[in-house]
Amino acid sequence: MTGLFIVISAPSGAGKTSIYREFLKIYQEVKFSISHTTRPPRPDEVDGRDYYFVSDEIFRQLIDQGEFIEWEENFGYLYGTSVRIVNAFLKEGRDVLLDIDTRGAKRVKNGMAGGIYVFVLPASSAQLENRLLARGDNPIQIKERLARAAAETAEAAWYDYVIINEHLPLAVDSLCAIYLAEKSRRDRIIR
Amino acid sequence: MTGLFIVISAPSGAGKTSIYREFLKIYQEVKFSISHTTRPPRPDEVDGRDYYFVSDEIFRQLIDQGEFIEWEENFGYLYGTSVRIVNAFLKEGRDVLLDIDTRGAKRVKNGMAGGIYVFVLPASSAQLENRLLARGDNPIQIKERLARAAAETAEAAWYDYVIINEHLPLAVDSLCAIYLAEKSRRDRIIR
Repeated sequence: MTGLFIVISAPSGAGKTSIYREFLKIYQEVKFSISHTTRPPRPDEVDGRDYYFVSDEIFRQLIDQGEFIEWEENFGYLYGTSVRIVNAFLKEGRDVLLDIDTRGAKRVKNGMAGGIYVFVLPASSAQLENRLLARGDNPIQIKERLARAAAETAEAAWYDYVIINEHLPLAVDSLCAIYLAEKSRRDRIIR
Repeated sequence: MTGLFIVISAPSGAGKTSIYREFLKIYQEVKFSISHTTRPPRPDEVDGRDYYFVSDEIFRQLIDQGEFIEWEENFGYLYGTSVRIVNAFLKEGRDVLLDIDTRGAKRVKNGMAGGIYVFVLPASSAQLENRLLARGDNPIQIKERLARAAAETAEAAWYDYVIINEHLPLAVDSLCAIYLAEKSRRDRIIR
């Protein structure tokens, strides 16, 4: 049976990355779909683990080669998801987690059947602002991201699941539960 | 918000009761819908916990009073689910677990919106036979129940989830995951 894939999205600073890193430690058999980006790495990010960090030129070549199921520009940087890598995992029966923003997620939903769409919300916009500050974003970035968070949150309306990230361990439990429950869906067990 | 309800069914001896008893210990806020039955209690069963054990006469009176959302005869005994009790819990926002056989479950599905339907399968029919023996069923009962298990298993096709009870703790995890995931469904979080 082909693998299942989970797409996870969130407004910037909702704590999505912390949630799925914990999830991936627990379910080590789930492959993380590593996006390509032209954004420079943050201090805690590793090339080939968090992203493939590539130049603008390479990214444009990959677009031309049809490598991406979706790609978009965020805050001046390009992000793309390799359809080739994801499909190879799914065909092997591996499950895949994809971290994609709402616009990209919508493109994946339109282009690939059977995904599970999870949206992470911060418990409050105050909590979101604190996370962005702690992360070292500057006031202008924070203002922009808060405005965008409000717009993105409206997009949660078409996702399958919503996790409110009030307390990290509980949010991780929810993501694990969603994964495990989807593995127990009748149409994955009986055909 | 009204509570959600989970209907759990299984062929006799699949280990369903052990699974949901553990589940109910973990999620003590979930109410168990106690069925009425005219069957005599098994040694480990307690009146008012596992069933309301009533006489045939009382059961017939309750049918006439419209107490049951579904009722049926199994192996000569009557079983019924009180719609009044279940609805009272749901209106209070309590979640409810119902243990109902496939025929009764189908009636509930036709009569009540929004339930979650979970079917438990034994890992194999050999395992099922062993469980029935361990429970003290006699050879004739076992033969009948095995034949019926095969028929009931075909009913799994319309359930939302299937749990294969190969190892009890994993089966309990699956039921917990299904519950938690359903609580994270977008339409329960965002309206």
